[in-house]
Amino acid sequence: MAANLQVQLANQRDGMPEAGDFHVVEAPIPRPAPGQMLVRTVYLSLDPYVRKAIRGDHPGHKALVEGDVIYGRSVCRVVRSHDDSYKVGDYLVAETGWRQHAAIGPEKVVQRVDPSAGPLSAAIGALGMPGLTAWGSVEHLSLPSLGETLVVSAAAGPVGGCVGQLAKLRGARVVGIAGSPEKCDLVTKTYGFDECINYKEADWEEKLKTACPAGVDVYHDNVGGALLVDMAKHLSLYGRVVMCGRPADYHSSKFHGVGLGPFIGRRAKLYGLVVYDYEHDLERYLRLASAWMREGKLKIKEDRADRLENAPAHFLKLMHGENIGKSIVAVGPEKA
Amino acid sequence: MAANLQVQLANQRDGMPEAGDFHVVEAPIPRPAPGQMLVRTVYLSLDPYVRKAIRGDHPGHKALVEGDVIYGRSVCRVVRSHDDSYKVGDYLVAETGWRQHAAIGPEKVVQRVDPSAGPLSAAIGALGMPGLTAWGSVEHLSLPSLGETLVVSAAAGPVGGCVGQLAKLRGARVVGIAGSPEKCDLVTKTYGFDECINYKEADWEEKLKTACPAGVDVYHDNVGGALLVDMAKHLSLYGRVVMCGRPADYHSSKFHGVGLGPFIGRRAKLYGLVVYDYEHDLERYLRLASAWMREGKLKIKEDRADRLENAPAHFLKLMHGENIGKSIVAVGPEKA
Repeated sequence: MAANLQVQLANQRDGMPEAGDFHVVEAPIPRPAPGQMLVRTVYLSLDPYVRKAIRGDHPGHKALVEGDVIYGRSVCRVVRSHDDSYKVGDYLVAETGWRQHAAIGPEKVVQRVDPSAGPLSAAIGALGMPGLTAWGSVEHLSLPSLGETLVVSAAAGPVGGCVGQLAKLRGARVVGIAGSPEKCDLVTKTYGFDECINYKEADWEEKLKTACPAGVDVYHDNVGGALLVDMAKHLSLYGRVVMCGRPADYHSSKFHGVGLGPFIGRRAKLYGLVVYDYEHDLERYLRLASAWMREGKLKIKEDRADRLENAPAHFLKLMHGENIGKSIVAVGPEKA
Repeated sequence: MAANLQVQLANQRDGMPEAGDFHVVEAPIPRPAPGQMLVRTVYLSLDPYVRKAIRGDHPGHKALVEGDVIYGRSVCRVVRSHDDSYKVGDYLVAETGWRQHAAIGPEKVVQRVDPSAGPLSAAIGALGMPGLTAWGSVEHLSLPSLGETLVVSAAAGPVGGCVGQLAKLRGARVVGIAGSPEKCDLVTKTYGFDECINYKEADWEEKLKTACPAGVDVYHDNVGGALLVDMAKHLSLYGRVVMCGRPADYHSSKFHGVGLGPFIGRRAKLYGLVVYDYEHDLERYLRLASAWMREGKLKIKEDRADRLENAPAHFLKLMHGENIGKSIVAVGPEKA
């Protein structure tokens, strides 16, 4: 572990990334400056937003140039600390980038991790920002209630899976949209949604109508682009839409057209969601979610790769929608 | 007045209509069937939605074919009645189409008109559906409040003018967007908005920023298309958008692209508005608006043509945005 592997950008591309756009290199383990700490990456989180952050199209992230380390958050462990608030052995979620070791200041810390709250890796899933995103959607914006039907796209993913499970806890009927029979199996059998529609089947809209006979009261959109438009006609009157992600638009700054007319006809209410708005509510969410997880009411599914060298290939798998569950790279051991 | 002029569709077109698409013909005065009444058109209302109704792209309106009378509402006077609820001499707003006389059933009546509430023609403007649209926007959806800034497009029109004046009554700062210096004069000098931006000037976005130094808290959109997208970046955090009209899309069923990403970043809330939802609140609105009009707090401006024969040319003027104020055709005398 004396070497410090990291993944750098090799090529800034407009469009779907390729393996050659990444570069795995060895670098020395950095020395933390005064006020900083040295952390060791345990689980690296792979997320769709990283694609647009690389392009400089995400708040607080400037476009990377060749040789820059790829943006990323991870569950990490404090190895050395020049900051009295953080002790050696503490677990954090932090902006480490794709590296085995990082010297970071406290401004890079996203959240502290209580290892007794659940599986350590869940801190970048249901017990972290993806879970909080779902919490903001369901508890702060759309408020699905008894007798209502919620539909969520990218339902097999960490945000979609939590949105649906939280809506079930609120008593709503929940229908997922996902991109393969395997994902739909996960959504209904593990997450416990009422139904899941494979949008790659030609008659998926017919199936959605059958699954939502009274229309869609809440649609949580993780996709953007054409699917968001298609969903307008399935909304019930006064339906709510949470606009959360738009990976359909992440590869490029090119404009993706969406016509708003059908939303007017449905008297829809559309809400833009940015997870940072709900950080003040993270502690309350984690207390509840941790209990639900222990009680088996909130399930998670991970798609893990081992070793940082495999991060680029695992990220491309995510970009192509071939992951089933939260995409994670196990970079180093939890303890030791 | 024995002949009964009417305007028929001569040509169904995809795109901006032309004079030759309309046909003025003489027809006999119809005889009302049992349960119907004969009404005489006093003021014909010309509205952007008529363009898409002709194409069959408006709720409850099927596409017209050659020889059909053009859709339209008017202030009309009951001449004969086979319905006990309506007496000869009553004024109504009704779906008469573009004709001097119409035989209509009670299902075509939009509202009864109290001639003492204000100018008779205002029943198709500030004291009618355009006013109620503004009421739904401001009082039911966006609720602009003290210290907030509301921006409204098509500000010189009947909906835009009312939106801004109602928001002023609520204590908001109000900035209009309109398409000529003459319209901007109307908006600031007659309607009393704080400022008005001519969007045909190259630096209009700079001027908008100056006029809204803390951002736009509420944007009432009467236009759709590119302007709606442009406005996303001027919204303050959690800004509200009322999506009301989209004349940019009315001429054609072709898709007009709007990217929703910037709205997510602003955490915007977008509301689709359809005026029919607020009909239950019409009486209360009319009571208030009639008083405001008498007190000089709610001003109207009309762009009038005389005689039904001039309706097509006056409609094209509206389609080209050359009208200043509510577009009306004075078809017949108020009394007699």
